[in-house]
Amino acid sequence: MNDEESPAGDLEARRGRVLGASYRLFYDEPIQVVRGEDVYLWDADGRRYLDAYNNVASVGHSHGEVVSALAEQAAVLNTHTRYLGAEVVEYAEDLIVTFPGSLDRVVLTCTGSEANDVAYRLAKVVTGGNGVLVTSNAYHGVTDAVAQFSPSLGPAVAPGPHVRAVRAPDTYRESTDGIGQRFAADVATAIDDLRAHGLRPAAMFIDTVLSSDGVQTGKAGYLRPVQEVLQSAGVLLVADEVQAGFGRTGHMWGFERHGLEPDLVTLGKPMGNGHPIGGLVGRSELMDEFGRTARYFNTYGGNTVSAAVGRAVLRVIRRQGLVDNSAAVGTYLRSRLRDLQSRQPVIGQVRGEGLFVGLEIVDADGRADGDRAGHLVNGLRHRGVLVNTTGPHANVLKVRPPLTFSAAHADVLADALEEALLEDFKRS
Amino acid sequence: MNDEESPAGDLEARRGRVLGASYRLFYDEPIQVVRGEDVYLWDADGRRYLDAYNNVASVGHSHGEVVSALAEQAAVLNTHTRYLGAEVVEYAEDLIVTFPGSLDRVVLTCTGSEANDVAYRLAKVVTGGNGVLVTSNAYHGVTDAVAQFSPSLGPAVAPGPHVRAVRAPDTYRESTDGIGQRFAADVATAIDDLRAHGLRPAAMFIDTVLSSDGVQTGKAGYLRPVQEVLQSAGVLLVADEVQAGFGRTGHMWGFERHGLEPDLVTLGKPMGNGHPIGGLVGRSELMDEFGRTARYFNTYGGNTVSAAVGRAVLRVIRRQGLVDNSAAVGTYLRSRLRDLQSRQPVIGQVRGEGLFVGLEIVDADGRADGDRAGHLVNGLRHRGVLVNTTGPHANVLKVRPPLTFSAAHADVLADALEEALLEDFKRS
Repeated sequence: MNDEESPAGDLEARRGRVLGASYRLFYDEPIQVVRGEDVYLWDADGRRYLDAYNNVASVGHSHGEVVSALAEQAAVLNTHTRYLGAEVVEYAEDLIVTFPGSLDRVVLTCTGSEANDVAYRLAKVVTGGNGVLVTSNAYHGVTDAVAQFSPSLGPAVAPGPHVRAVRAPDTYRESTDGIGQRFAADVATAIDDLRAHGLRPAAMFIDTVLSSDGVQTGKAGYLRPVQEVLQSAGVLLVADEVQAGFGRTGHMWGFERHGLEPDLVTLGKPMGNGHPIGGLVGRSELMDEFGRTARYFNTYGGNTVSAAVGRAVLRVIRRQGLVDNSAAVGTYLRSRLRDLQSRQPVIGQVRGEGLFVGLEIVDADGRADGDRAGHLVNGLRHRGVLVNTTGPHANVLKVRPPLTFSAAHADVLADALEEALLEDFKRS
Repeated sequence: MNDEESPAGDLEARRGRVLGASYRLFYDEPIQVVRGEDVYLWDADGRRYLDAYNNVASVGHSHGEVVSALAEQAAVLNTHTRYLGAEVVEYAEDLIVTFPGSLDRVVLTCTGSEANDVAYRLAKVVTGGNGVLVTSNAYHGVTDAVAQFSPSLGPAVAPGPHVRAVRAPDTYRESTDGIGQRFAADVATAIDDLRAHGLRPAAMFIDTVLSSDGVQTGKAGYLRPVQEVLQSAGVLLVADEVQAGFGRTGHMWGFERHGLEPDLVTLGKPMGNGHPIGGLVGRSELMDEFGRTARYFNTYGGNTVSAAVGRAVLRVIRRQGLVDNSAAVGTYLRSRLRDLQSRQPVIGQVRGEGLFVGLEIVDADGRADGDRAGHLVNGLRHRGVLVNTTGPHANVLKVRPPLTFSAAHADVLADALEEALLEDFKRS
């Protein structure tokens, strides 16, 4: 699509001139998206795509109730939290009731990166340490501090000397029985190593679906041993729910499935169905200690419009029963994909929870096959189905549709994947 | 207003329970704002306030064209920049034409903090250093990295060892002739000091109105000597236009007034008239070097809706002639305030540029009088006019209304200030 003659090629050239090298596009042939509705996106030629990728539009693209809440509030008032406002209080109340009682305070930001960044600032203040533990291909965001503990950004972004990246669980290659203990033991070793270097560990950040580590959902509860290690070492557990939260896993929060009791929880993307909202939820004794000393004011975090949008998203999740739908359709989708796996050994494993699904694409020896995964992503795109890859070898198909996905949509996805697999075999 | 019986008191108590200690309210008696239109805010009792403070609602509260752009785009599509989209390209093009030709690339974020944070990441990558210079009471944002070079956050947020806070110009107490040279000499000393400590200086961040240093607009061009020092030392100049940008000073950008040629420019708040958008504009050789190596993807930075809102704001600024209005009404407002100053010596200086005005409130000996400034802020609030304070001693009245402010509004503000001053004298 580098054809400068076509409108899309022309747009791509204009894009390069103003946005430059930081900006990358999905797919060998990028898609010019012009409209979204529920689980569908349309391109400039009117072609419809089944969106099985975009978790941000969590309750569906352009959801009427969310758009109305946005438009109505924006027409009346959009201001910050230094004035008393009912909207942000009501939103915080609505949000907090979805958490265990111990997590009783909210700080609102505009992005998930900002949420993880303030969680780190808070962890440093309340523990007096600055050491951070993460998984080996973690992604927690793009601020300077958070990028330093996001190894998935690659070698160009150096991890800080205060960061320890612990080998992530590999639920395909490690035994289900031993994986939780192995991971916990490695975390304990990393804590000891930080201390041996004179660094006090402040927090471990865990994406509760380990999305960028390849969607390592594993067996419910397998992250419990890590929590025990952290608790006994006095290291805070930050559950990063930017990917897993808001019903994605068939639970409201990913940490619930593992029976975790995090000290802090960070929120992002799907919180506003695309409207920029993020947040930090935590125990009041931690949150208030930070609040009293360092304070925290995010000019448009928790603004009147964001609060109205956030409330609408929670209302829609509840009324449309999207947490249960995520669980049920996710189970059905995995059953269809496992059926396909029985005929297609390049699918090494079908895993996930709710509507967060990972397909481990492997070669004949069970090794990660990122090239084939890339072909499948582009093959699905040409069949009108949008997914992408993840994991340290980019060989895991990441399937993460809006939570309104139905069994019929799951069938379309599974059928298109089977076709893409067959075509890819013919080519290779 | 801690009366638990009243609706506002009840709301404040509920607020404390869910938002906790990080959240502060303006004014001795906080205002429950329920509606905004143009330069006015209304409280829950229907009382109208003249907003002379909120620069974020830069083109006026709830501006119809901006709200329509938001609502219309949100109803059609809200997605990210990994798909090809005309909206973000058109917005970036509209934005870039407002800058000198050398500043030809845009990276979009969701907040001004994120913009300064990515500017710092970029400066580190392209210079190989990590040293930062700022003014002594600078505010550049709340991410971990940026908070470390925002001394105005107070002693609870420790400046990083790689940060040098240079004594800010004090345009009331320093001579107009020598101030630029004195400031430049101090910056040169700070650069030497960083080097003496083995640190390579990467960038100096300058808010081009020095807002948190007390609105030190000074004489046009007085920041030129600093730029010469930075250029000869190979230190990047980051013009932080989060406060000064988008017509606030009667120029589109604050750096224009000083004849500066910044390497990077950071944008925030007024960019979306309250919708969370921020951005970084810079020279392509810097921007692309960072983009090629570290990359940068901000999930909802430059999303379709933010781009539509950003375009609408630029359109309104242009069509309503708000840059010129800011210049003209700002000049008139300062003339009214200088007239008042001639009768009220507690106003030590009336300064500013365009609709960013600072009033230095002093005691009989010309010393900063933060207590009196606080009384005046609350006195104005009770007269239905909203302002606040700034500066290291919180003694500078910060006047920063929407750019649609008129001469009639300026009269209301000046008259209310005179009344508040008279009342304050009676009390003291």
